[in-house]
Amino acid sequence: MCIFRFKLNLRFLCFICRPTYEQKYRSYVGQNNINLNIMAPKKICVIGSGNWGTVIAKIVGTTSLNLPSEFDPTINMWVFEEIVDGEKLSHIINTRHENVKYLKGIQLPEKVVAVTDVIEASAGADILIFVLPHQFVRGVCEKLKGHVKPDCVAVTLIKGFEVAEGGGILLISTVISSILNIRTAVLMGANIANEVALEHYCEATIGCSDYQLGQSLKFVFETSYFRIVVVEDVLTVEVCGALKNVVATAAGFSDGLGYGDNTKAAVIRLGLMEMIRFCELFYPGSKLQTFFESCGIADLITTCYGGRNRKVAEAFARTGRPLDVLEKEILNGQLLQGPPTAAEVNHMLKAKNMEDQFPLFTAVHKICIGEQQVGDLLVCLKNHPEHK
Amino acid sequence: MCIFRFKLNLRFLCFICRPTYEQKYRSYVGQNNINLNIMAPKKICVIGSGNWGTVIAKIVGTTSLNLPSEFDPTINMWVFEEIVDGEKLSHIINTRHENVKYLKGIQLPEKVVAVTDVIEASAGADILIFVLPHQFVRGVCEKLKGHVKPDCVAVTLIKGFEVAEGGGILLISTVISSILNIRTAVLMGANIANEVALEHYCEATIGCSDYQLGQSLKFVFETSYFRIVVVEDVLTVEVCGALKNVVATAAGFSDGLGYGDNTKAAVIRLGLMEMIRFCELFYPGSKLQTFFESCGIADLITTCYGGRNRKVAEAFARTGRPLDVLEKEILNGQLLQGPPTAAEVNHMLKAKNMEDQFPLFTAVHKICIGEQQVGDLLVCLKNHPEHK
Repeated sequence: MCIFRFKLNLRFLCFICRPTYEQKYRSYVGQNNINLNIMAPKKICVIGSGNWGTVIAKIVGTTSLNLPSEFDPTINMWVFEEIVDGEKLSHIINTRHENVKYLKGIQLPEKVVAVTDVIEASAGADILIFVLPHQFVRGVCEKLKGHVKPDCVAVTLIKGFEVAEGGGILLISTVISSILNIRTAVLMGANIANEVALEHYCEATIGCSDYQLGQSLKFVFETSYFRIVVVEDVLTVEVCGALKNVVATAAGFSDGLGYGDNTKAAVIRLGLMEMIRFCELFYPGSKLQTFFESCGIADLITTCYGGRNRKVAEAFARTGRPLDVLEKEILNGQLLQGPPTAAEVNHMLKAKNMEDQFPLFTAVHKICIGEQQVGDLLVCLKNHPEHK
Repeated sequence: MCIFRFKLNLRFLCFICRPTYEQKYRSYVGQNNINLNIMAPKKICVIGSGNWGTVIAKIVGTTSLNLPSEFDPTINMWVFEEIVDGEKLSHIINTRHENVKYLKGIQLPEKVVAVTDVIEASAGADILIFVLPHQFVRGVCEKLKGHVKPDCVAVTLIKGFEVAEGGGILLISTVISSILNIRTAVLMGANIANEVALEHYCEATIGCSDYQLGQSLKFVFETSYFRIVVVEDVLTVEVCGALKNVVATAAGFSDGLGYGDNTKAAVIRLGLMEMIRFCELFYPGSKLQTFFESCGIADLITTCYGGRNRKVAEAFARTGRPLDVLEKEILNGQLLQGPPTAAEVNHMLKAKNMEDQFPLFTAVHKICIGEQQVGDLLVCLKNHPEHK
């Protein structure tokens, strides 16, 4: 049974802007047999306030205003406090409605409220949106343990794995759901944050094992420029989101070595083949069709052309300077996800003696830790088992 | 039965450079149970001498030198004669070994010989490589009719369709094989010509209904930097090569409208979904797996980022100037393939009353012929049935 249900609330539609949106919403809900069961407007909390977190707060801060009968318009956004030019970031957000550190120049809805205590931010939330570097998820969840509503639903937008004992890896959705004991969906897609912030058209994928719940969650995120497809193959959606950053690191190396679009397309394709193989081997039931969704090829393309992992990897290949130094110089406080994810993947592949089956993933890791030269990527590509 | 067979010719391997290549070749041939039946070295002819045709002549001019027991080292290349700075292009190629019009700065093997009469160029050829604009294929084949060896094999690298009577379209491989009555394979991939000319690493796909023949053809084209996978799903390989240019035209419009990588990734993905649907509907037996080959997603990515159709479409969206004028200004004598292919596809979709099922293909055509504005592409994307 779905724990997150809407009930149609037939409030009088009093704003000029609302009827069309609500009518479309209800028409869709009717046609698709979605079980509506809202007792009160649902409260949404965004856990994270980096570049992507702030954009998502902007989106859900708008969709919640468009559907006031379904969602509480106030969106708490957990902010890890920082001082920016002598002022608290949370104070800047709450007075100027702009995250000047991570999303400069973009106005946030006034109902997006920065809260620096994660327990306070998430108090009473029906939907918890996790969007922070994957290295911090366990710590935050441990803090939240015992403080979230039992019928709360989590949606993770986080890319990466957690290393498990015994040579395995854990998905972030598994970490969240196991610590908080709540259902967890994922949202991934071809979504470079700054472009979404400018409301440029793009797509995303919600992975949710309960399709009806996924359809309900679609209304939390979907706008005219942010289009969503729901699939049930949640593991593949999440694994794509993590592994794409490893491939994007290889794409950055290729760029830094001076190669063009042909070589990058081969890197993307061979990377995708390793992603598919990885899912087939370690997540049985993974569907090939899911790789055609926005979370699959589209996100991979975007990340390999416009993403931050590609950018830093290119600089690394061009200059030979350390990745952590370049990360600090180029990313303005954001973190690289490709190299740590490559390490997590390699941790498992090595334990299972399967490095040879994933030469691109393996080469990226070895180049990142200095065991191989950047130029060795080409050796890996030329001898890839896909051509045998 | 395969009409194109090799027989192992145990000539003495006299050059320093040959043993490794030949040994690898023979080892591969042995392991893969390829039927070798060469009576005499096979003669290869390249029909076309544009940008891509000249690069392919460079490649086969090199592979034939590496395998002299299997291939005649002289490669005839049919050149449509042009005068360049007062000199015949064929004369320039045969004396300076450079196609100064379409591949400036790249040295060709001396055994690549420009021949201006297509019947003379192809005389005695065992392998005919077709690489010219798709609009000219039928005329050239009609000329060749009755002049090619009956056991000759064609390989088409041509992207596009031919409009058939009664509202259908024909594949170029069908046009070639039906006029010349010879077996026809296809080669497509993520191959921007100038990058291949610089020997930057890339991949390609050979589609051949006879797998063993496809494996033999692999040796005509494969080098250390040009890696080939053979598949039997020949129709999908060829259809991908044609339709990608329609999608790349949409990608160019998106660029010209000022959108970034997210929007382009959505254009690529939705275009790919229409390509898959097109194959499912009109080419039953098409395999989803083929779209993961270089001819599928990889070529689509490369073409949507670095191809000439994208470039002209971007200029069209930015300036509003006519496509044919921009084509002349930007492409130095090369032809656009996206707009005519969109027209050919629309010819069929309209006849079958199926335009609505392919909104992106349809929008590209209507924008190209002035029936819709470039900005209407976004309306198409926002209402695409993939999100329903």
